[in-house]
Amino acid sequence: MKNIKELIIVGAGIAGVSAAVYAKRSGLDFLIFEPSAVGGQLLSMQAIDNYVGLGLEAKASQMAENLAQTLKDLDIHPVNEKVAKISHQDEILNIDTDKGIYQAKVVIAATGASFTRLGLEQEAEFTGKGISYCAVCDGFFFKGKDVAVVGGGNTAVEEALYLSQIARKVTLVHRRDKLRALEYLQKQLLAKDNVEIIYNSIVVKPQGQQFLESVLIEDVLTKNKRRLDLNGLFIAIGISPATEVFKELVSLDDKGFIITDEEMKSSLDLIWACGDCRRRPLKQLITAASEGAVAAISVYKYLKGYYISV
Amino acid sequence: MKNIKELIIVGAGIAGVSAAVYAKRSGLDFLIFEPSAVGGQLLSMQAIDNYVGLGLEAKASQMAENLAQTLKDLDIHPVNEKVAKISHQDEILNIDTDKGIYQAKVVIAATGASFTRLGLEQEAEFTGKGISYCAVCDGFFFKGKDVAVVGGGNTAVEEALYLSQIARKVTLVHRRDKLRALEYLQKQLLAKDNVEIIYNSIVVKPQGQQFLESVLIEDVLTKNKRRLDLNGLFIAIGISPATEVFKELVSLDDKGFIITDEEMKSSLDLIWACGDCRRRPLKQLITAASEGAVAAISVYKYLKGYYISV
Repeated sequence: MKNIKELIIVGAGIAGVSAAVYAKRSGLDFLIFEPSAVGGQLLSMQAIDNYVGLGLEAKASQMAENLAQTLKDLDIHPVNEKVAKISHQDEILNIDTDKGIYQAKVVIAATGASFTRLGLEQEAEFTGKGISYCAVCDGFFFKGKDVAVVGGGNTAVEEALYLSQIARKVTLVHRRDKLRALEYLQKQLLAKDNVEIIYNSIVVKPQGQQFLESVLIEDVLTKNKRRLDLNGLFIAIGISPATEVFKELVSLDDKGFIITDEEMKSSLDLIWACGDCRRRPLKQLITAASEGAVAAISVYKYLKGYYISV
Repeated sequence: MKNIKELIIVGAGIAGVSAAVYAKRSGLDFLIFEPSAVGGQLLSMQAIDNYVGLGLEAKASQMAENLAQTLKDLDIHPVNEKVAKISHQDEILNIDTDKGIYQAKVVIAATGASFTRLGLEQEAEFTGKGISYCAVCDGFFFKGKDVAVVGGGNTAVEEALYLSQIARKVTLVHRRDKLRALEYLQKQLLAKDNVEIIYNSIVVKPQGQQFLESVLIEDVLTKNKRRLDLNGLFIAIGISPATEVFKELVSLDDKGFIITDEEMKSSLDLIWACGDCRRRPLKQLITAASEGAVAAISVYKYLKGYYISV
């Protein structure tokens, strides 16, 4: 068995990297695990215009590179292994990866989440070029333009409401004959002049040259297809946190997100969480970065014995 | 009376600017008030090496400029007025400034806080050049070097403990003959090999060419002075949130910080808070930026009637 680390951070998206920066600066003995490249969801994003300090013209790929460089500069080298299982014996966590076994006093979960895809051909190619999974992230790019939202739950209706303040027109495309969203959200949506709802329909094909220009939608009853011209397509059919290895250890909410307090501590003292795998009011790069910092410093205080809950 | 704004943000430090960015992108009708320059505490800081995405070589002055530019680019123009009084009548807030009267449905407090200064000659000149008020912010710059902490309360002892992991030697200088910090914090400090405590002493003079090289300390009983060679001086004698105009309206903690929930809502639905004026686990630029974003989006949902507390 290797030596027991004070901390293992699982995931090197922006939350994990921020945690690593603060852990390093605190002098903690830690590792960070990341089976793929540093950057997490940044790797599939394009522009970033809402991360204060970076200006309005930042590129996601550059930010991902910047995070990787920051780790390098701080002599932090991500362990390229996938965590398969975590268990705990007394006050020590055992972490099994696809390549080895590790032990740590504390784990910070920074494993992120992934949006459910529609599964369309070219969905990936158009992501960041018209297709988005987050209205608060990308809505502003479509100011005065036409967008559609796919889905019928609370998130889809919230996204449509949010976009109705920014876009010229919002079309909500839902595969069933009624929405699942809460009644009062539906009422608000129906009161909007610039929102149209198309029921019993699915998006079958995104179309466009470099950027999205239209989608083909199909009526699921008649099988008729028609073209809907638009600039943006927001897909809001679900999000899955990558919390599989934590689910036996800590309390999750009904969607699988890790529940923590404001210091990022989960229901088990040994597991802390930050970023998209955590239940939180706002999923953004800036909130993930902040939570990574809070998690690391809170863990530091916890390990050093002067943790005082706010 | 002018038209009623949906939102007024008070303060254009990083928290207020982040709130403004998200408010703008949400299409809210809002103003941001700032009696001095955009940037808040950034204006008196030097280097920033822990704001992920900016790399390790960022300059505070550049970041302040970047924030001002971001506001300009988004066509947000801070109102150069100082808020003197806030009151509310039914569901509307009346905001009196030194120059005018405004009304808003919601106020976001982003007024910051200021560290208590020792009041030394040249204290301001050496700030960021050896003198600091925040170990988590600046401790890493003093890796392997000698530092002193001034103070005797919980914060001073916590800062000394934090620095003892990073610095070669930490000297705690306290003006009384015993510490005020919690017993268990004191015990930990006494157990450290690289920490020395000098009681009954005050720092009377910072010295150095471009950067701090030593301080003169004076024994308050004997009035004897001596030189303490060091690279960093951390002053931890207090912090005052700028929450005077809010104190009659919302719940504050015992130090005057505004108490909020995780969505940044205070005890009064009409007042929200973010950044250093708010009680929170970690005071950092990245947490302030995050809280500004959360506050704006939560306020947006509240105003639009689809606020769901997490």
